[in-house]
Amino acid sequence: MIVVMRPEATQEQVDHLCQLVREMGLKDHVIHGTDLTVVAVIGDDRKKDGSKLENVPGVNRVMKVLEPYKMASRTTTGGKRSIVKISETCAFGGKQIPVIAGPCSVEGEKQILEAAQAVKDAGAHALRGGAFKPRTNPYAFQGHGEAGLKMLAAAREATGLPIVTEVLTPSDVEMVSRYADCLQIGTRNAQNYKLLEACGNQPKPVLLKRGMAMTLDEYLQATEYILAEGNDKVILCERGIRTFEDHTRNTLSLSAVPELHDRSHLPIIIDPSHGTGHARMVPSMSRAAIAAGCDGLAIEVHPDPEHAMTDGAQSITPAALAELMTSLHRVAEAVDRTCLSLAVVGSRE
Amino acid sequence: MIVVMRPEATQEQVDHLCQLVREMGLKDHVIHGTDLTVVAVIGDDRKKDGSKLENVPGVNRVMKVLEPYKMASRTTTGGKRSIVKISETCAFGGKQIPVIAGPCSVEGEKQILEAAQAVKDAGAHALRGGAFKPRTNPYAFQGHGEAGLKMLAAAREATGLPIVTEVLTPSDVEMVSRYADCLQIGTRNAQNYKLLEACGNQPKPVLLKRGMAMTLDEYLQATEYILAEGNDKVILCERGIRTFEDHTRNTLSLSAVPELHDRSHLPIIIDPSHGTGHARMVPSMSRAAIAAGCDGLAIEVHPDPEHAMTDGAQSITPAALAELMTSLHRVAEAVDRTCLSLAVVGSRE
Amino acid sequence: MIVVMRPEATQEQVDHLCQLVREMGLKDHVIHGTDLTVVAVIGDDRKKDGSKLENVPGVNRVMKVLEPYKMASRTTTGGKRSIVKISETCAFGGKQIPVIAGPCSVEGEKQILEAAQAVKDAGAHALRGGAFKPRTNPYAFQGHGEAGLKMLAAAREATGLPIVTEVLTPSDVEMVSRYADCLQIGTRNAQNYKLLEACGNQPKPVLLKRGMAMTLDEYLQATEYILAEGNDKVILCERGIRTFEDHTRNTLSLSAVPELHDRSHLPIIIDPSHGTGHARMVPSMSRAAIAAGCDGLAIEVHPDPEHAMTDGAQSITPAALAELMTSLHRVAEAVDRTCLSLAVVGSRE
Amino acid sequence: MIVVMRPEATQEQVDHLCQLVREMGLKDHVIHGTDLTVVAVIGDDRKKDGSKLENVPGVNRVMKVLEPYKMASRTTTGGKRSIVKISETCAFGGKQIPVIAGPCSVEGEKQILEAAQAVKDAGAHALRGGAFKPRTNPYAFQGHGEAGLKMLAAAREATGLPIVTEVLTPSDVEMVSRYADCLQIGTRNAQNYKLLEACGNQPKPVLLKRGMAMTLDEYLQATEYILAEGNDKVILCERGIRTFEDHTRNTLSLSAVPELHDRSHLPIIIDPSHGTGHARMVPSMSRAAIAAGCDGLAIEVHPDPEHAMTDGAQSITPAALAELMTSLHRVAEAVDRTCLSLAVVGSRE
Repeated sequence: MIVVMRPEATQEQVDHLCQLVREMGLKDHVIHGTDLTVVAVIGDDRKKDGSKLENVPGVNRVMKVLEPYKMASRTTTGGKRSIVKISETCAFGGKQIPVIAGPCSVEGEKQILEAAQAVKDAGAHALRGGAFKPRTNPYAFQGHGEAGLKMLAAAREATGLPIVTEVLTPSDVEMVSRYADCLQIGTRNAQNYKLLEACGNQPKPVLLKRGMAMTLDEYLQATEYILAEGNDKVILCERGIRTFEDHTRNTLSLSAVPELHDRSHLPIIIDPSHGTGHARMVPSMSRAAIAAGCDGLAIEVHPDPEHAMTDGAQSITPAALAELMTSLHRVAEAVDRTCLSLAVVGSRE
Repeated sequence: MIVVMRPEATQEQVDHLCQLVREMGLKDHVIHGTDLTVVAVIGDDRKKDGSKLENVPGVNRVMKVLEPYKMASRTTTGGKRSIVKISETCAFGGKQIPVIAGPCSVEGEKQILEAAQAVKDAGAHALRGGAFKPRTNPYAFQGHGEAGLKMLAAAREATGLPIVTEVLTPSDVEMVSRYADCLQIGTRNAQNYKLLEACGNQPKPVLLKRGMAMTLDEYLQATEYILAEGNDKVILCERGIRTFEDHTRNTLSLSAVPELHDRSHLPIIIDPSHGTGHARMVPSMSRAAIAAGCDGLAIEVHPDPEHAMTDGAQSITPAALAELMTSLHRVAEAVDRTCLSLAVVGSRE
Repeated sequence: MIVVMRPEATQEQVDHLCQLVREMGLKDHVIHGTDLTVVAVIGDDRKKDGSKLENVPGVNRVMKVLEPYKMASRTTTGGKRSIVKISETCAFGGKQIPVIAGPCSVEGEKQILEAAQAVKDAGAHALRGGAFKPRTNPYAFQGHGEAGLKMLAAAREATGLPIVTEVLTPSDVEMVSRYADCLQIGTRNAQNYKLLEACGNQPKPVLLKRGMAMTLDEYLQATEYILAEGNDKVILCERGIRTFEDHTRNTLSLSAVPELHDRSHLPIIIDPSHGTGHARMVPSMSRAAIAAGCDGLAIEVHPDPEHAMTDGAQSITPAALAELMTSLHRVAEAVDRTCLSLAVVGSRE
Repeated sequence: MIVVMRPEATQEQVDHLCQLVREMGLKDHVIHGTDLTVVAVIGDDRKKDGSKLENVPGVNRVMKVLEPYKMASRTTTGGKRSIVKISETCAFGGKQIPVIAGPCSVEGEKQILEAAQAVKDAGAHALRGGAFKPRTNPYAFQGHGEAGLKMLAAAREATGLPIVTEVLTPSDVEMVSRYADCLQIGTRNAQNYKLLEACGNQPKPVLLKRGMAMTLDEYLQATEYILAEGNDKVILCERGIRTFEDHTRNTLSLSAVPELHDRSHLPIIIDPSHGTGHARMVPSMSRAAIAAGCDGLAIEVHPDPEHAMTDGAQSITPAALAELMTSLHRVAEAVDRTCLSLAVVGSRE
């Protein structure tokens, strides 16, 4: 932490600030510049609320120096990337770039089975589908709950695809964990810390979507709520941030991929469906995501988008997915990755 | 809902779109303009996912027409404003502009009693203080939990001030409701729908902070989760939104006050402490909020900000609050409101 | 400037960085913290491109410490506020809070004369009106040019109100300066540095609107282009920034008022018309601006907004202005300012 | 244009609105919905200021339906993409994806010649370099002006690479046009309409960067200022937008590529250097841009970034560019494009 004093700060004010720093159990180091004085604060200030020093007379501002997260940091693993497996054939963070595909909502048994088979045939590696839906509109369809989870399990049974599904509240975590291969925490719950903790206390991997207004520091801090509980199987997911742009539902920020790889050992996937809100942009943004270095994709696919109960605007058809997979695989190869299944990857190496 | 077709859309595409509209139980009305065709969709589409029509061939975009909320809408009350009382002397939405003041966190019994007495002496109408703290940093102080609630109750006992305190998760709602006069839902939980529902199912008023990336439509939709459960005592609170600005922690958007008053019957208060992040801006922004027409203020006050466990940067001292109250009252009178207590207001009228 | 090294940075990398700092004519001061090393760079780095050090091996990031502007800084005047007069009765930065009012565009001689007389009668202190219009839409009305300036001069002649009008390009500066009492530079030209320089090279005061995506640092740096040419009569104007909000045309950021007052000696006014885009919000936001401490207002007023050639959506009528002035004056008095004319102010004191 | 009335709007208010619509030379078409009335306005309203209708009693809001641009629209060319050539071997909008590379500033003859040769050897197709620099910081290096243009011409002479360079103000357009193969208009001047017009009145192609807070509608409207003057050789360039993100200088919005291709016939290139601000992200974001479908790249390359006078933080070395070109070419082939030079492309086809 660096405390920048105001140009007109008095020596007494600097002394008082240093006194407060020492009271916090940290060390002060005063540097007199040509125009003003700064106080470098030495020690681990991550557990302290250093920002309160901004309110001290003579202080201009406080600048953080240390990363505010620890277990998510790449320094923790000595620079190595983590690989998070959600099934024997679906791993995030390695050479393979798995595609999680499926409808926004589990609408019924027939729909989800059909969707599961279709995305499997198209080459997807995992099935997504919501049994619990966080809807902006309170009057909209909210999901089938546990019945939906059972339908997902049946779809896994039928296809062998691992299942990724969302959990909304701590009291549901145990139940969702029983059915799912990977729990998803949505963008609106990305700072629902009680939910993060609960997901840290169960054994399945967790796909934590970035909050739509979260900085990357805040995002990695959120992962610590899961990691600190002992669950180290966290998958990051950029799904678009909120900006002034109006041609997309959100602005997909692909620079998060290299930056998160630089800061953290955790794998990072991209959701081009929510990240744009338009089915027509899913192919180009999926290709871009792979070229940017992402470790996976989450794509909304619906057998009949025109009649989807939710997110029809951004869902592509299974036929479109099949065509896209061929194209994604070509881009993956151009960056020395693959979109084939692990078995095939293994047999190749 | 208005569906704008692409200029090159064929008649068949228009027909297909109209067919889908009718399948949704709505009525289509085609208008041929000079450059393109639009389809006006007639009927209550609030429970339908109309956005899926964007994905239909020949469609350019879909524009919503109806407000996506109902019970929060001002049309529900025939244009009248609701008044939400959290105690006999503290009501939001009328002539009085109450000030909720207190520390970010309940740090200990002595601190909260001292703070409560100090803000009461300064002229505040309610006491705020967090027993459960949602912290971005997982290693930071998370609050005293139920022990903190008891300290708040003791502070109420000592001062007579009603208590506003945050609840983080559905399973705590019942307990917090037992102690508090008003439950607060924080910005990070503003779309935690299970929490909203749980707060809708208890009898105390709910102060719902605006999510830092929420549009006003989304914000009012979130209130419907509470209102629809039967609790109509909802207080809105603008507390700063996330923008590119870096001179404040958030950008306090005061235009939300007249706009929310125009759209909704619910009272709207302002939190200048989180809305700026700097104690030095709290006086000017509090005055501005009152002049803008707000129905209350939530201000962080700490007896000793330099040693506050949380949010010291944005907390003012009780002495500063006392000075501020005089100034606020002058501005309130300039807009035909008052910051005096209800009893005094009553005796004056 | 503080250079934060990566945790894994080697001593050689630190040495190399220090070498580069010394090559820039600055002094390095290395501080070894518990987790990483930072290098404090001592000396005036405002004319150096310090950010290039971010690209040096072992460097994590570079944090600026010094304000990147000088002449606009409040330290330049020893903390005193500047007062900028645009006529004998209209001064920004003192006790008076002048209101600049008038139509977006000068549409014709009759319209501007009528508007001028109406805003004068309502109590406004200066007349605004565009002869050169920067229109987003290339097919929209672009203003009457010099003919419009002549109409403005005639309106001044008739009413005695000083004139504020926009200039779009350096080659017009001399001409506009001949007619206007104050030159306005619009938000889209706020970083048109050649225009800023040209306005710095003429004698009339300059009202520089904040760019809609400018930080305050960038804004004050822009003023330096004018100040550095020798023209110290600069008036700042917050007119809304671009954010995700959709209920207003821009988000009016009133916290800019106390922050700019803290950093700079220049007066700061508010434009609630562009800052919201809706006539219905102009009264509440004007009151809020005054309560926040602004030094003036710029309000769009049109005799017949329904037939205005430009900005009809955000223009109020002269009758509405007259009513508003009374209310503004009450709020101004509540913060020990006034909206009366200078003569009256003088006679009162 | 669709005018949405308030639910409580009276028939008289609807009639009055329709009257105003007809006065604007447009046709009204009233639709009575279940909850409210909307008025569809028929006719070309692009030259009208329809937003003023928002201020009419009983009106809730006005929604635009027509694209606010014409000549930039893809409908103008019947859906065909335009190809813009800046030299015989460098064309934007076809199969080839040219890379414009070079330093931010022309610092001296030796530097620019060395840079030109180096980027040519690395495989770049055009040379960029600023002779006129728009600097946020008024005290920073502002470029060598015409002397810089001469150095660029010498570099072209030596390497055969076409030259792309920025112009800041209308009075310089003729001079810059004499030296450059393509004129660049920077993000800060993207709504400097007088400059756009001046560039429309000279024969060289124009690379117009997107303003950092521009929507795509506004961006395409800005191109119309150039197109309407008769210059149809416009190249679009996404270079990052301003958002709350702090890990990059700007947020590179790659979804602009498919969207601009959908709306406009003009080619669109990406600037990953300004779009991120970090040299370390240039390779991944360049690959992503090509995979997203862009028609070219503009990359800052400096022989010695640590000593660059400007933008050192985001400049890569010629050696890094050479390595990157190989990788870019692989990604280009994966999407059926190429980064080879036109001659080679030609001989292949």
